[in-house]
Amino acid sequence: MPKRATAPDHCAIARALEVIGECWTFHIVRDAFFGIRNFEGFQENLGIARNVLANRLSKLVDAGILSRVPDADDRRKVQYRLTDKGRDLFPVIMALGQWGMRWETETAEKEAFVIVDRENGVPIAPIEVRAADGRALRPWETRVVAGPGMTPEIARTIPSLAGKVA
Amino acid sequence: MPKRATAPDHCAIARALEVIGECWTFHIVRDAFFGIRNFEGFQENLGIARNVLANRLSKLVDAGILSRVPDADDRRKVQYRLTDKGRDLFPVIMALGQWGMRWETETAEKEAFVIVDRENGVPIAPIEVRAADGRALRPWETRVVAGPGMTPEIARTIPSLAGKVA
Repeated sequence: MPKRATAPDHCAIARALEVIGECWTFHIVRDAFFGIRNFEGFQENLGIARNVLANRLSKLVDAGILSRVPDADDRRKVQYRLTDKGRDLFPVIMALGQWGMRWETETAEKEAFVIVDRENGVPIAPIEVRAADGRALRPWETRVVAGPGMTPEIARTIPSLAGKVA
Repeated sequence: MPKRATAPDHCAIARALEVIGECWTFHIVRDAFFGIRNFEGFQENLGIARNVLANRLSKLVDAGILSRVPDADDRRKVQYRLTDKGRDLFPVIMALGQWGMRWETETAEKEAFVIVDRENGVPIAPIEVRAADGRALRPWETRVVAGPGMTPEIARTIPSLAGKVA
């Protein structure tokens, strides 16, 4: 089997990580969810070099995650807003953050802040994989099923499907 | 403000990405969820160089995401199993995969496979951020609240809290 220099390009996770897997890119998206909208805001908050920030903002705009819109207060300035595609990262960011909080932070830091429902101030639920009817599912309660677009090449990378797709 | 070479180390997302943000690492974890357990299985499936694979497996063991256990069929061999911490990445992997499927794949590839509930074969629900009572929450329906472990340094990185923590 030929060695691949990079991960299989048909993998949705690989493509998602290409865009948001870089540390700064992810933090910019997180800050956009926190309400930061302009270059100076990101710069001040992340303590990131201006050229690096400009590069990452462009990358996120090119990827369709942020869009540049004129600042309503000062038309010479530009704001960065999450697009629909960017806002759709909300569960990804929250799932990663919850996992990191549970497993990768010191006890004191675990209690630094909580994300709450704005309506009643109650902390949000742990993010879970759920069945269509809402039951939480553990990994072994799910399986991968081939769809109409399945190819032998893709099936080869999924053990439970390998050999089942002609 | 001093420039930082890396992201703030108190950020749970940053720590999570340090461990699983690397492309191969993430694919190994994905394959572990698909049921792959030994070196040869990962190697064959990912087409990854053996030295790179050995390095990434060690990294995942050191991070407590995989554990090495003797193969029951051949005690000279070792298996790699997801730990509790590793299995807890299930919602993260699924959320990333769903996002990538929605936004980063071609139409034909979108239909290559689906993840279904093993019990009834029905595709799993889209992963959502939910309130404690189960209501799906959009980003603007949540907010960040300081907890007992909050510090001025952490508060400074969260715009809605900046200036509110002494």
